[in-house]
Formats: sequence, C-alpha cells, structure tokens
Amino acid sequence: MKKIKIFSPATVANVACGFDILGFALNSPGDEISIETNVHHKIVLYNETSYELPSAPEDNATAVALQSMLDFLKTSQGFTVTFLKKIMPGSGVGSSAASAAAGVFGANELLGRPFTRKELVRFAMQGERVASGSAHADNVAPALMGGFTLVRSYNPLDIIPIPSPEIYATVVHPQIEVRTSDSRKILRQEVAIKKAIEQWGNVAGLVAGLFSNDYDLIGRSLHDVIVEPVRALLIPEFYTVKQAVLDAGALGCSISGSGPSIFALSKTLSIAEQVAQTMQNGFNNIGIDNNVFVSLINKEGCRVME
Amino acid sequence: MKKIKIFSPATVANVACGFDILGFALNSPGDEISIETNVHHKIVLYNETSYELPSAPEDNATAVALQSMLDFLKTSQGFTVTFLKKIMPGSGVGSSAASAAAGVFGANELLGRPFTRKELVRFAMQGERVASGSAHADNVAPALMGGFTLVRSYNPLDIIPIPSPEIYATVVHPQIEVRTSDSRKILRQEVAIKKAIEQWGNVAGLVAGLFSNDYDLIGRSLHDVIVEPVRALLIPEFYTVKQAVLDAGALGCSISGSGPSIFALSKTLSIAEQVAQTMQNGFNNIGIDNNVFVSLINKEGCRVME
Repeated sequence: MKKIKIFSPATVANVACGFDILGFALNSPGDEISIETNVHHKIVLYNETSYELPSAPEDNATAVALQSMLDFLKTSQGFTVTFLKKIMPGSGVGSSAASAAAGVFGANELLGRPFTRKELVRFAMQGERVASGSAHADNVAPALMGGFTLVRSYNPLDIIPIPSPEIYATVVHPQIEVRTSDSRKILRQEVAIKKAIEQWGNVAGLVAGLFSNDYDLIGRSLHDVIVEPVRALLIPEFYTVKQAVLDAGALGCSISGSGPSIFALSKTLSIAEQVAQTMQNGFNNIGIDNNVFVSLINKEGCRVME
Repeated sequence: MKKIKIFSPATVANVACGFDILGFALNSPGDEISIETNVHHKIVLYNETSYELPSAPEDNATAVALQSMLDFLKTSQGFTVTFLKKIMPGSGVGSSAASAAAGVFGANELLGRPFTRKELVRFAMQGERVASGSAHADNVAPALMGGFTLVRSYNPLDIIPIPSPEIYATVVHPQIEVRTSDSRKILRQEVAIKKAIEQWGNVAGLVAGLFSNDYDLIGRSLHDVIVEPVRALLIPEFYTVKQAVLDAGALGCSISGSGPSIFALSKTLSIAEQVAQTMQNGFNNIGIDNNVFVSLINKEGCRVME
C-alpha cells in the first residue's frame, strides 16, 4: 500500500472586506495527516492528535470530503487516514477546511492526480458542510490552492486565484469560545446599500492592491464595515487590540473567519513580529490566554511532506 | 490670450457590478470645448452646441468645477469656455461629467499643469454636484484619467486606475427620458446581504479579470444583482435587448450609469459592431429611436485637440 504524509495549511477567510468570498493560506499552523490506500473499500480514521475529532466517517470533515470525491470517481478504493497534527478546532483559522483539504489532496495524489487543485475544492467543500452546516469554499480554496483566493460565485462554483506580493500574516487566537453558528446568527440579513457600496469599493481596492503589489492600497482597503462591527462584540477588547496592531505598523487588521482569531497583514517580518507581541500583550492584559502565529502567506497550499 | 480645444470622453459608470464605484471612458462620443484665459476675472460661457445648457455659471457643471479649482488656487484668473460639441444631456453616459472634466482639464493645461489628472477629480466632482445633486466621481474620474477607474472611497477620496486589456464598448441610447433623480429614488436603501455578497464577488472578479486580461472572467463577472433589476423597469424591453446582445457574443451587458443607455463589452470590434446592430434592432422593433456608439475603451481621458 502507498502511504504519504500531507501538510494542509490554516487559512484566514473573509480578509476584512471580503466576507464569504476571500481567503488566504498560512505556512503555519496547519494539519498533518498520513493517508494510505487500504483494501477494506472504506474510509478508516485514526486520531493521533490531542483533540477529540468526530470518529464516525459521516460526521468527519475529512471523511465526508474524501467520500464525495470517491463517489464522483465511482471507485470503491478504501483509504486510511491518520490525523497527526491538528489546528485547534473552533479557532477561526479553517481547522475543518484544512482537514477536508488534506484528505482530498492526499487521496488525489495516491490516485495519480485525476483532479487539479481547483477541482478538488468542490469535494473539500462537502467536508465544510458537515463541520459548519454550510458548504462554503472560502477556507478550502486557499487551503488547497495557496495564496489568496476569490470565490466569485457558488452557482456555478468559480474560484479565482489572486496573486499577491510577499506579505506576512500575524494571527492571534484568544482562548475563548465563539461558535460559528452563533457568529453567523448575529449577522443582519439586510444591510444598508451605503455600507454595501463601501464594502465593494474596498474589495475592489484590495484585489487591485494585491495584483499591483501596492501595499499601501492593500492597507487602505482592509476595512470591513458590515460584518466586523457585529462580530467584534463577541471578542473582548477587539478594538483596543486592533488599534494597537495598527499603531504597531500593520497594513490592516480584522477578524479571521467567524472568529475568535484576529489576523493582521504586514509588509515585513519585523513588523509582523511586533504585531504578534502587541496582540499577545493585548489579550494577556485582560487575562485571556492566547496563541500567536506569524507566517508568510503560503503560496502553495496543501503539499506532500514525505 | 492662450486658447486650446479639449476633447473630453463620454463615460460608463457602474459597469454592472460596480455600482457607484466603477467607470470607464469611451473614445466616442465626447464633449469638445475651447477654453482660453480672459482678463475679466470671471468665467464666461458660450454655447455653440445644439443643446440648451445652463448659462448661469453657478448652474453650469463646467463653470462650477472650474471655479472650485480657481478658488483652491486662490486665483482670480478668468476663463472663457465655448461649448462646441456636447454629449446629449440625460443619456446616461456622463454628459455632465465630460463637461466638468473638460473645463478643469483645459484650465489646468493653460495654467501650466499645477494638478495631476487624479487631483483634478476633486474639482470636477463639484460640477456633478450641481448637475445631478451629488458630487460623485465614477464618471469624472474615467473622463479625466481614461481607462477603467475605481472610486475606492470618498472619505478620503481614493481613485485607483484599473488596467485593462483591449476591449470594445457598445452603447445604445434609447431616446426615452429617465431622470437621474428618479432612477436613484427607486433604489432600495437596504439590500439582502446574500445579494451584496454576490455583488462584491463579481466586483472582485471583474477587477481580477481586468488585471489579468482574462476576458472570460470579465464576462462572468459582469452581473448586477442589486441595481439593474430595479432600474431595468425604467427601460422598455431591457431584458430582451440584453439577451440578444449576449447571444450576439458580448462579454456582458448592463445599464450605463442611471440609464437609459445600455452598454455592452466585447472582445473584438466585429462582435462590438454585431452587438450595435442587435441593440439598434431591439429598440427599432418597439419603435424607440436610438443612437448607437462603438468604441475602444479610451485609455487617455481628456486630451488637448489643438
């Protein structure tokens, strides 16, 4: 039996102004799995991480994503997946997306690459459906393809890779619980057209800034006038931390996915590290445990480790 | 006294998904003015066009724009402006914007270019305020700067030029009256967040398509799910004409500005001309007089003719 080890990156969805459409991948943290073909004609899961993960294949994002790919191929090939390292579930940096992406990416390698990375998005999304209740693509697309990705449309699914200059992300995960379902529930179903126009001006500006390597424009565009003002309520001292991060020189700062993690983008590693210290101090000051990660934007997406 | 002649292009604002933020310039039609310095310390207007234009400087878009620039410079230099050719007012292709842009562009040339084209936008917007009641920039920016422009933000004003591949516009002006004020009044002040997300996915896709010369992506992104469905009600047989235009091979088709003109973008001149014929037939069939223009996207903006 062939056996490979896969790294699948954490991802930041929304990216301030790009609610539900933009995301980017990180070099760390990430999931690590090993995957091998088996002769049992089914998906077998082993968990060697420190986190409790759904063990029934029908509840597990990786298994559901993988099964949807196998169904499409009309193959009864079995796979054994062992979870080795896991992004902390519920942290808001695409934990379920990384797992779903890892599974379909690894199986695709073992099967001789019947699909492109972009084609795998459709299967990985099915893992998101079971993990979060909606088959969104804004985390699985960057996890699979790397870099910044745009989900232009779901119907039909249209994923666009967005090139970017060298840019550093800092992510802080304050150890508080924010359920994705809660953080969706508090969003309004209607928004003021004035705010929507501001938002799509910024989305257009962000895409233009990424294409033209214009850090200043990227920074000017990293504003979310629709979702952040609501979700910020779920994160203690969000605005205090954000202001300190901007003062430390970050291009922009907002909530990662549905939170509670907060991300910032910076032009240099030294600013990104200064931002990390600032984030850590911000949450330490109010007695909230936190983990901070500094990473170049991952341009590759999932990869075979060995 | 120095005297120059200026061409100022018609412009298409909104560009489907980019309501209030995107616009592009046409090679034709356009305004032509002559402008010269005078010794009267005031703005003097002559109208040699076939249209009635506001003759009082305080009501005239060109004079108001020009005066705001002179006020900024704290100069009492007078200018005499003669309107030679005029885009038909009320057609929805930036008639007032072309006039306002022409005035400030011409005066800037005569004064030795104290301002960049981008800096002139702020003054030209003042002409829009008197012409349409709001100092919007989505027509004056492309009129002055050429190509596609993005108004990322008004506060502070942030205009971003968006590069584009060679692309042809076809514009039909059906001879019906749609007041800009009416076409703004019928817009809803709140929009469903689902629609807003679709819209900003398409805006991001359009900007990405323009940057990457991806005609197919440009076409896939030219959808307006928020404003077009409302304003289409003011244009007889809009959807019939639009469908015929798409069937003729256009990348996309929507309402120009607040209408009643309709624009389409095409990859080649021959498609753009086929689209023109289709538009003309569409309105001829229902007995509505119409003018059709085919033009490469104007990349230069206002220019000195002689």
